[in-house]
Amino acid sequence: MAALAELGGRAVAVIGEGVVDVGRASDGRLSADPMEVLAGWDGFVDWASGLGAGDADAPLDPGALGPPVPRPRKVFGVGLNYRDHAEEAGLEVPKEPLIFTKFPSCLAGPRAEIPLTSDRVDWEVELVVAVGRGGRAIPERDALGHVAGYCVGQDVSDRRAQFAGRPPQFSMGKSADGFGPLGPALVSADVIGDPGDLRLTCDVSGEHMQDGTTRDLIFAVPELVSWLSRHLTLEPGDLVFTGTPAGVGAVREPRRYLRDGDVVESAIDGLGVLRNRCTGP
Amino acid sequence: MAALAELGGRAVAVIGEGVVDVGRASDGRLSADPMEVLAGWDGFVDWASGLGAGDADAPLDPGALGPPVPRPRKVFGVGLNYRDHAEEAGLEVPKEPLIFTKFPSCLAGPRAEIPLTSDRVDWEVELVVAVGRGGRAIPERDALGHVAGYCVGQDVSDRRAQFAGRPPQFSMGKSADGFGPLGPALVSADVIGDPGDLRLTCDVSGEHMQDGTTRDLIFAVPELVSWLSRHLTLEPGDLVFTGTPAGVGAVREPRRYLRDGDVVESAIDGLGVLRNRCTGP
Repeated sequence: MAALAELGGRAVAVIGEGVVDVGRASDGRLSADPMEVLAGWDGFVDWASGLGAGDADAPLDPGALGPPVPRPRKVFGVGLNYRDHAEEAGLEVPKEPLIFTKFPSCLAGPRAEIPLTSDRVDWEVELVVAVGRGGRAIPERDALGHVAGYCVGQDVSDRRAQFAGRPPQFSMGKSADGFGPLGPALVSADVIGDPGDLRLTCDVSGEHMQDGTTRDLIFAVPELVSWLSRHLTLEPGDLVFTGTPAGVGAVREPRRYLRDGDVVESAIDGLGVLRNRCTGP
Repeated sequence: MAALAELGGRAVAVIGEGVVDVGRASDGRLSADPMEVLAGWDGFVDWASGLGAGDADAPLDPGALGPPVPRPRKVFGVGLNYRDHAEEAGLEVPKEPLIFTKFPSCLAGPRAEIPLTSDRVDWEVELVVAVGRGGRAIPERDALGHVAGYCVGQDVSDRRAQFAGRPPQFSMGKSADGFGPLGPALVSADVIGDPGDLRLTCDVSGEHMQDGTTRDLIFAVPELVSWLSRHLTLEPGDLVFTGTPAGVGAVREPRRYLRDGDVVESAIDGLGVLRNRCTGP
């Protein structure tokens, strides 16, 4: 049982309602850098499992946290990975994963503001997978062994930028600064067990917009990890935004986009809640 | 006058036919990590400008070099950015830059092998820009001041993977391991001056396939840097693969793709040559 967060550039372990600095409390056996902690994930999980409530050195303040995986080398986004979302978008269910990137400078903390870039910015709650042990050509049956943990991600999407140009510009439309709230902490895979049975929801200013389950993923987590690793080498800290269920704003009747002052709450069973206020444009 | 390369994980400066270890020769004033050198680029250029032939501590061996920018946070690819290439592909000239990513694990050294992934792997010689000073909303007139330097890039593209799925999968089709040969060194922007008047060529096993000039870029370097920075924050070490001129294999008559044993030579005026042998599939 372990959960990694990022506070002021340093790795912290979450213990109940508190946190403890990983580098200091481990007497330097573990790194202060969250990316290094990810690269030696099993050691972190072993160490964190021995912590008790008395080991916390500060209260948990989600507003002070950064993204738990602050500098991934690769961020994969998966398009149309829930059947109900493909249907609401009027698009065919894909035969193979459709991949874009969220450029990593978009990643933000669990309470960060979302600076709106147009009048068509939309929400997408997603289960995010962080790779622990890298690899190539990972068989599906071994794939979960390469996962460090999971967190909530919000794949904020500017539909204007996304559908400007041909082919459509998924990566640019989803990568503005602040468009990747992540966290609140990276919960180790052993805590979650089966990532294929988690409820995920998104509320916007109190209105319930998305309510899905990872049972409905077209390409489930083991298949995604295996498929990606057959195309390129996965590295510790690589992230996979696994896709969003039905209920985004662009296909609602009437359409609904994010406005200045809206609060987006993105939640997944056992992983916690992101709460992000929109500003501008 | 300065050029940065990467040797065994460490930053080296190129001096004529030799190299010198940056961290050691600067007595630790400069970092041994090429990414840190990029983040303090002006200091590196000042220091390297004072070096003479006698300062080299090893001969220059391009076969031993890695990519000069080994761990960029973002790698932007620009699609259809030469008029003649858009025409040969039968596609409209874009009104705004079309952006994909090459996932950074594809980056490879100037003499690295290219492991072919199918019978439809193609070549694309490109001018690559490395960001030195990051920023947001950079005016076009200031953009070149944010560029550290330039190098040759080979945007190897598996047309099967690229055009599998809808929308087309540019990022996955261009990101297999070894699909981003880069180098041989990052040449500082002051050496090149105007990046808008460079000849770039690609030869495959002695056959002259591409011969273009950056004068024909639809979106020139200052415009690309400025445009990207209006959409998201640029950071030191971010790379832009600026697009390829006409002459790729997929639109030749008859079509020609890379085969086991082919040698791809990609060259740009003043930046040197990449020489990459293909293996497999």
